[in-house]
Amino acid sequence: MKALVYLGPGKKALQERPKPVITAPTDAIIRITRTTICGTDLHILKGDVPTCEPGRILGHEGVGVIDSAGPGVNAFKQGDRVLISCITSCGKCSYCRRQMYSHCTTGGWILGNKIDGTQAEFVRIPYADTSLYPIPAGADEEALVMLSDILPTGFECGVLNGQVQPGSTVAIVGSGPIGLAALLTAQFYAPGMIIMVDLDDNRLEVAKRFGATACVNSAGGSAVEQIMKLTGGVGVDTAIEAVGVPATFELCAKIIAPGGVIANVGVHGVKVDLHMENLWDRNITITTRLVDTSSTPMLLKSVHSEKIDPKRLITHRFKLGHIIDAYETFGHAADTHALKVIIEA
Amino acid sequence: MKALVYLGPGKKALQERPKPVITAPTDAIIRITRTTICGTDLHILKGDVPTCEPGRILGHEGVGVIDSAGPGVNAFKQGDRVLISCITSCGKCSYCRRQMYSHCTTGGWILGNKIDGTQAEFVRIPYADTSLYPIPAGADEEALVMLSDILPTGFECGVLNGQVQPGSTVAIVGSGPIGLAALLTAQFYAPGMIIMVDLDDNRLEVAKRFGATACVNSAGGSAVEQIMKLTGGVGVDTAIEAVGVPATFELCAKIIAPGGVIANVGVHGVKVDLHMENLWDRNITITTRLVDTSSTPMLLKSVHSEKIDPKRLITHRFKLGHIIDAYETFGHAADTHALKVIIEA
Amino acid sequence: MKALVYLGPGKKALQERPKPVITAPTDAIIRITRTTICGTDLHILKGDVPTCEPGRILGHEGVGVIDSAGPGVNAFKQGDRVLISCITSCGKCSYCRRQMYSHCTTGGWILGNKIDGTQAEFVRIPYADTSLYPIPAGADEEALVMLSDILPTGFECGVLNGQVQPGSTVAIVGSGPIGLAALLTAQFYAPGMIIMVDLDDNRLEVAKRFGATACVNSAGGSAVEQIMKLTGGVGVDTAIEAVGVPATFELCAKIIAPGGVIANVGVHGVKVDLHMENLWDRNITITTRLVDTSSTPMLLKSVHSEKIDPKRLITHRFKLGHIIDAYETFGHAADTHALKVIIEA
Amino acid sequence: MKALVYLGPGKKALQERPKPVITAPTDAIIRITRTTICGTDLHILKGDVPTCEPGRILGHEGVGVIDSAGPGVNAFKQGDRVLISCITSCGKCSYCRRQMYSHCTTGGWILGNKIDGTQAEFVRIPYADTSLYPIPAGADEEALVMLSDILPTGFECGVLNGQVQPGSTVAIVGSGPIGLAALLTAQFYAPGMIIMVDLDDNRLEVAKRFGATACVNSAGGSAVEQIMKLTGGVGVDTAIEAVGVPATFELCAKIIAPGGVIANVGVHGVKVDLHMENLWDRNITITTRLVDTSSTPMLLKSVHSEKIDPKRLITHRFKLGHIIDAYETFGHAADTHALKVIIEA
Repeated sequence: MKALVYLGPGKKALQERPKPVITAPTDAIIRITRTTICGTDLHILKGDVPTCEPGRILGHEGVGVIDSAGPGVNAFKQGDRVLISCITSCGKCSYCRRQMYSHCTTGGWILGNKIDGTQAEFVRIPYADTSLYPIPAGADEEALVMLSDILPTGFECGVLNGQVQPGSTVAIVGSGPIGLAALLTAQFYAPGMIIMVDLDDNRLEVAKRFGATACVNSAGGSAVEQIMKLTGGVGVDTAIEAVGVPATFELCAKIIAPGGVIANVGVHGVKVDLHMENLWDRNITITTRLVDTSSTPMLLKSVHSEKIDPKRLITHRFKLGHIIDAYETFGHAADTHALKVIIEA
Repeated sequence: MKALVYLGPGKKALQERPKPVITAPTDAIIRITRTTICGTDLHILKGDVPTCEPGRILGHEGVGVIDSAGPGVNAFKQGDRVLISCITSCGKCSYCRRQMYSHCTTGGWILGNKIDGTQAEFVRIPYADTSLYPIPAGADEEALVMLSDILPTGFECGVLNGQVQPGSTVAIVGSGPIGLAALLTAQFYAPGMIIMVDLDDNRLEVAKRFGATACVNSAGGSAVEQIMKLTGGVGVDTAIEAVGVPATFELCAKIIAPGGVIANVGVHGVKVDLHMENLWDRNITITTRLVDTSSTPMLLKSVHSEKIDPKRLITHRFKLGHIIDAYETFGHAADTHALKVIIEA
Repeated sequence: MKALVYLGPGKKALQERPKPVITAPTDAIIRITRTTICGTDLHILKGDVPTCEPGRILGHEGVGVIDSAGPGVNAFKQGDRVLISCITSCGKCSYCRRQMYSHCTTGGWILGNKIDGTQAEFVRIPYADTSLYPIPAGADEEALVMLSDILPTGFECGVLNGQVQPGSTVAIVGSGPIGLAALLTAQFYAPGMIIMVDLDDNRLEVAKRFGATACVNSAGGSAVEQIMKLTGGVGVDTAIEAVGVPATFELCAKIIAPGGVIANVGVHGVKVDLHMENLWDRNITITTRLVDTSSTPMLLKSVHSEKIDPKRLITHRFKLGHIIDAYETFGHAADTHALKVIIEA
Repeated sequence: MKALVYLGPGKKALQERPKPVITAPTDAIIRITRTTICGTDLHILKGDVPTCEPGRILGHEGVGVIDSAGPGVNAFKQGDRVLISCITSCGKCSYCRRQMYSHCTTGGWILGNKIDGTQAEFVRIPYADTSLYPIPAGADEEALVMLSDILPTGFECGVLNGQVQPGSTVAIVGSGPIGLAALLTAQFYAPGMIIMVDLDDNRLEVAKRFGATACVNSAGGSAVEQIMKLTGGVGVDTAIEAVGVPATFELCAKIIAPGGVIANVGVHGVKVDLHMENLWDRNITITTRLVDTSSTPMLLKSVHSEKIDPKRLITHRFKLGHIIDAYETFGHAADTHALKVIIEA
């Protein structure tokens, strides 16, 4: 089968690989119909993710059809259409029992990282019963690819952890796909104000269309002043960090209102300065989270009831045979204006 | 009247000052019967609190008797015995309405800071109805002095924010009065393990008597290893920072379990390093808080029903005329083994 | 001044009454600009509310202008435009301190009940600082009349207590003004399904326009079957009782899913049967609540940010001189299709 | 093997039955070392539980040793000592995913009800990985038998649902084993007052030893008055119903404070009267729950850290060969003063 393989820092190739086989009774083999590329895949390609070794098939998102299932799989049978969660969950360990699937002792984020992933014609999914979701009849598969990772990530790490509330004020720092996913799902809670912050006017333009009430280009250095002005000098109730560098984290710490929450979504590579001399008495909360995908059933219902249209995040489409082009397009988003790219297998 | 007055960095004196008078209808004048000294008073004396200007009477803790009350005071009358909250609350602003009295727009921590405080024979308390609490008949006044600040601080900023739960594991970094207040109040929730961390073996000895299940002297540099060993390699569910320097905060970040909470209580003077490159995917929460004293009614009930004995924190007693000696004793706690000192007015 | 006065069961009149005066320092006198009639006013007129004695001026909703304020009022001054809360709150008692203003020991629902109300040219409001809200510049006063009672009632007693969540299923039993207020505010949380239940097809038609995803006329006796079918045989996550009779409460108990919440909003006059033999193992929650109006600041923000348009509830408008006609119209809603009627003073 | 078999209303016998065998890959066969009798077993024997058919081996509590495990069992192997949960959980269905194991679509309370139970030498446990818990080395097995059902039931249905808090007031109506289990576990939260209510002075005497702060014998008809007096006329914050008849439920409704919670634990056979005409405006919550045993890991930690000693509930011990005597003793608790009886297999 065709598969996109990581070959070490800076190197990848579309290769022919053997079709995966069931290795545990709770495994299922999925024929991929659609997958996508995540910012994390680019991190891997830079060599930033040491757990991912050369030779690995990348990808942790996608939808497909059950090709075969082990004898311990009860919830699915051959031919069922399924959504693949980016997080693999055993359903049994102490973390899984409290819905913190991200830290499953034998699962977590392993797809396209510690085991072969979804940017291929087939993929093996361990713990299929608790790591796959049935696709409702009539659902739009493309839209559901957004539920493998990006939508639950923006929602759980940003919106839920950020305690977005009706009438509250929210700033989302970073208007890339993850920030936009937080923007879309923040609207489940009818906040009174959502301020999007980015350096790229095009992305802010998209944010406006997606429901932002105000946009701030942070290039000029006056982002803090602009946000404080928009909030009557108080700051925001929720600041969602959706970039992953010190400057954006520290911006969040400057605009947070007393009693507010900084919800980190970004993947960080270095430490940040936390100005506790200013924050110790501000009654704030800072959260971090690797997505648990515990909200996937709820997001499926929200898509089904048309409360959200995740398809709006899709800007480009490619065939698996042209996935190298898809990486090019996704990797140069400033020029191509790419958000999420769909790969049809 | 006699009063302890701050005279600028490093300088204080017991002076004769005019008795305070009612300046607003919601004021009450309290004749102080007992007060105490807080670590924050030492910070002021070092010159670390710019809002507190020379000439200020210090002190934000104490119990006393209503000497007179303005016409807008409904809940108290002359002769009533009262507990003074370290936080002054108008009861009306948006922060007070959501019990975040610490950020009351016209109150908050003003006593012994922006207005004259309780280390005196009399004190003026603004918003008396919402900043004082009646002392139940038969209550031990000395014990209640601990409810002005130290007990709600340890409880709200440490235990409540830290989400201490039955069976959970807790580390309290810092075994001074605040850490011990957190230790006492953490036991309201029957955690399975409370590890106390300090550099001073005497304080750890006290902690053991107060209910710590394990003590770790962090002097040797192996605190992280010891705590990880005690928790089976997982780390603690709650880490309470009760010192206020980078080393102790960063220790908390190293011992927190996935899904855990770092609850900051310490007053910080400089920034800390937050290693987001290690923490972004750990599903942790960090909280800061200036005490709101919203738990004071509950703590009064807990003292009344003998679920807690805050008197155990008291090590020394002085008359107001000897408050300079009390400061000496409290300020040299390593030698005197002082925790809280009672000043009788 | 002109005032609508309750004269005993079945009797009311528009009378000339003296203008109210300030009787406590925390009182304010409001010149009413707009008020409205509540279903509770009809209950009083039937003689169902023993605390309301003949001679009482009715009404507990409205907006107006500060005519005069006592010396203890800090937040408002003459000429300020204000929203009157149906709940009077001292801000100081133990209930007020935990935002349960409905049970304020010296306030609660007293307006137009134990003291004279708002269906008059002027009204005296006790505890003005904590019982009035400033009207933002540019706000539509008519819309804000809905925030005195009906919107917070539907929201707090129905939606908040009912724990409405994104993607969840909701049934609202009763499509009168209160049920419709719950319908409007439930949409703050993007539930996947909102089923409205009523006997009146006109009201269900209105509900459809206001955002209901399904409507069930319960006249035919098959409401339970229809709702179970709509929910795939599971029942609803939230059932909001917005009528106040045994049949509707018992309907809620039949359609609630395991783990669900029955949130009672209706005012009941007699006991209901609670079939604990069916419910004891269903993991359900039942809540009751007199509105606290603790959500009023949030609702003001939601109106201001156009997340909700409460004006949609207004069907008729009258001058105070014609308030008897307004009662006629409101009291015969089945014929007049009245929801809320505005009275201009 | 020997087994206690239900033979229809009023009839049971100790019979010889074949040893159970594995029928699904996720099954385990447990050699029972200790089991016990539950009040629910008496209900079955009265014919009150239609899902339990004649021929069924009774019992849903116990500890034992893994005799054999199916190929789909990962967490346990032959010889492991295990605690059996009274609730069987697949770990995969939507209820299990949100820790509502009681409503597991293919599990729930099936042991000794829909499938053969634990009052035998061996038992088959479906979904072994998620329905058994490892017994820590050195643990007292007798004590742990109390964790199969009674302790999590008292804790989850009574204490957790009842929102017991430090300093709060609690009444537990019913001082049998379940009420006492609630009493023991309520103390995890340091409430200020726990009032036990029963008709039997012996049981109240036991309650006093177990930590009750006050005891009320409800025989005389003045229970409401006594409880209102104990609470200063306010009522209790939490009322735990641990009997299951209308009189005790209705007592709870009379003693609940505004804002309080009635947490039902009792198994009810008939409807109760819910006086909504008194309760609609009291801001109360009523909860029902079949135990989920989601708290079992926490309770294991609490026993391990000696925060609770569940062995105090054990009054009698029998060999499996004398289980009929054990039923006699347990069934005549008023005379024998039996609480929980241990059956050694």
